[in-house]
Amino acid sequence: MALVNEHFLKLPNNYLFADIAKKVNAFKTMHPKSDIISLGIGDVTQPLCPAVVEAIHHAADEMATQATFRGYGPEQGYDFLREAILKNDFLPRGIHLDINEIFINDGAKSDTGNIQELVRWDNSIGVTDPIYPVYIDSNVMIGRAGVVENGRWSNVLYMPCTAENGFIPQIPNKRVDIIYLCYPNNPTGTVLPKEELKKWVNYALKNDAIIFYDAAYEAYIQDDSIPHSIYEIRGARKCAIEFHSYSKTAGFTGVRCGYTVVPKDITASTLTGERIPLNHLWYRRQCTKFNGTSYLSQRAAQAIYTQEGKEQVKETISYYMRNAHKMKETLTKLGLEVYGGENAPYLWVKTPNGEGSWRFFEQMLYDAHVVCTPGVGFGPSGEGYIRLTAFGQQEKTDEALLRIENWLK
Amino acid sequence: MALVNEHFLKLPNNYLFADIAKKVNAFKTMHPKSDIISLGIGDVTQPLCPAVVEAIHHAADEMATQATFRGYGPEQGYDFLREAILKNDFLPRGIHLDINEIFINDGAKSDTGNIQELVRWDNSIGVTDPIYPVYIDSNVMIGRAGVVENGRWSNVLYMPCTAENGFIPQIPNKRVDIIYLCYPNNPTGTVLPKEELKKWVNYALKNDAIIFYDAAYEAYIQDDSIPHSIYEIRGARKCAIEFHSYSKTAGFTGVRCGYTVVPKDITASTLTGERIPLNHLWYRRQCTKFNGTSYLSQRAAQAIYTQEGKEQVKETISYYMRNAHKMKETLTKLGLEVYGGENAPYLWVKTPNGEGSWRFFEQMLYDAHVVCTPGVGFGPSGEGYIRLTAFGQQEKTDEALLRIENWLK
Repeated sequence: MALVNEHFLKLPNNYLFADIAKKVNAFKTMHPKSDIISLGIGDVTQPLCPAVVEAIHHAADEMATQATFRGYGPEQGYDFLREAILKNDFLPRGIHLDINEIFINDGAKSDTGNIQELVRWDNSIGVTDPIYPVYIDSNVMIGRAGVVENGRWSNVLYMPCTAENGFIPQIPNKRVDIIYLCYPNNPTGTVLPKEELKKWVNYALKNDAIIFYDAAYEAYIQDDSIPHSIYEIRGARKCAIEFHSYSKTAGFTGVRCGYTVVPKDITASTLTGERIPLNHLWYRRQCTKFNGTSYLSQRAAQAIYTQEGKEQVKETISYYMRNAHKMKETLTKLGLEVYGGENAPYLWVKTPNGEGSWRFFEQMLYDAHVVCTPGVGFGPSGEGYIRLTAFGQQEKTDEALLRIENWLK
Repeated sequence: MALVNEHFLKLPNNYLFADIAKKVNAFKTMHPKSDIISLGIGDVTQPLCPAVVEAIHHAADEMATQATFRGYGPEQGYDFLREAILKNDFLPRGIHLDINEIFINDGAKSDTGNIQELVRWDNSIGVTDPIYPVYIDSNVMIGRAGVVENGRWSNVLYMPCTAENGFIPQIPNKRVDIIYLCYPNNPTGTVLPKEELKKWVNYALKNDAIIFYDAAYEAYIQDDSIPHSIYEIRGARKCAIEFHSYSKTAGFTGVRCGYTVVPKDITASTLTGERIPLNHLWYRRQCTKFNGTSYLSQRAAQAIYTQEGKEQVKETISYYMRNAHKMKETLTKLGLEVYGGENAPYLWVKTPNGEGSWRFFEQMLYDAHVVCTPGVGFGPSGEGYIRLTAFGQQEKTDEALLRIENWLK
């Protein structure tokens, strides 16, 4: 008799963004003429830049004739893209990686979800709280998260990030095997200074732990002192796997491409103490369960690294960051406590008078016709906050701010 | 201390196609001027058809302007493609599926590898032997395959398919929880008549087993009596999940798109006997660990279902099937026992005089400069066979046949 993987049944039935959509639809049904602006879901709105579009056209033409047609590519991605990554994303920061340490993927969600396959099912995990739900859910599905006790998973250590500690997670005073960090952070939009990131690398090295480092938003960093990659920290090659995505960097949410760095120095232990390099294990995992990212998407990604591509991508990021700055300025003037939004496309806003996240979400929806994301949806420490994103069109974002202003006055 | 998933270490260190590449490279080093033709790896050689190329250009242009730009798509795929699938791949065969039973993927390898996440880690599995390695390896990685004993996995039931039983796997006389079937078959190129497939569905219904049915090569079926989908069999909706791929149908090995059918009627049991629908579980899995297939690839796939797309794809399939027929005819005339190649792009050839697969592979490489795939690489029952593919260019395939003829004479 085929038995179901019962760990799946432990997952909460509600899904944050589905719940939001449901509430928004209910509002629309009651107010069919209302014009809602969403500053909620983190999808981009600006088109692909011309260099990327041109590269896709060119790749399509290559696929149209036998001489230049491309079938299966390498599971780990084409060298043309892996070389561009080494040369542009790492060498300028003094990070020397081998081409075989780069694995092209179809977006960071797949790899941040799949990476946990490499470690034992009962390894403990530590997460900053609030957190991107995939990190925990992918561990729940294999039984690693344990069971829910008082709204928290028994095998997960939650490291609160709130205004009280300046959104700096505290180094655990006990051993955790696997740590998820995401900086610039989703959902809080805050960053980790180099000296703080160093503490994590040192903790991991000392405790033989592994850091899964999600750098999906690094392109939004404006402050030169903030690390773009964990490999800027000495020793990180021995303890960290890093995830990158072109989704937010270059509007690839529909194109699907990113990459994962698995250094050759990072190992995990067997029960008998043998050290196993994870680079080879990830390669094996990808060769077995993945057949490479679309050639079209890889050529599209390569175009981001050309001179014109770089300039065009930078322009779009500036477009979104103008939103972020204006949002932060306006909301702060209105007396709200606003975090993030300086080196990230996300703003994390404290609800006034200690109101609950969902209650504030509903008020903003009904009174200002603006959609946000309730912070508590990202974890218990998100209660009393909401997330706003800077990915909207400028005119709509401005209009949303006007509405919020009129509502809160 | 982070502990490694030790199940990964049970995987054989050698990978079939890597081993072949190594041997071919050794030959090339010794004979730098030789011109080798590969009838080995199953990649296509013909370019994308014009309708598909046009669709990619159009999609690229849509992504270039804000009004038509597409960001995140639904994890389960766009309705425009799911509707085309229902209308073209299933309705004409009298199969009525709901749109939410179709999940667009980035190729069948990902989904045939990931689908096992839905069932308990200790469910037993049954596979036809020889077999596409992903089915077993993805189960090894999570510990479900057990341990190797005499070259076989302890929790895997092998169902031999050889010339002796006409390549018809025998229904097991014991209970197996999960069964992998692939028809038209990779690697043997043989098919399963409707009455045989019926036996499997009945077995699964009777034993509360689940069939993972890989239909990646269904577009190559020439004989109208052979089922294209397991859902042509009554009751299959309750026990089978089916995988489709555009890789071989339309040369999408580099574009990456396919789909998986998870009917709403299929359930698996909890330990307490509760029935859990797998459709919802797969949706949850995909929403957590996948962010949808590239918009470009989905539009490319949609074009296959237009009138011109259908005709163009059919032409390419005929091109390959001409190869298959010629290969079968020539090799048979040479006195070889040849199977498959009539409803599939693969030919399965018995080595003469009971020679070993690898020995025959090396002879063909050194004496005819033609590369094949040793059958034993697909499982113990593949010993004494080799696989040839019909995906070559016609001129090269003809030349390879000439060489084999001269060599064997």
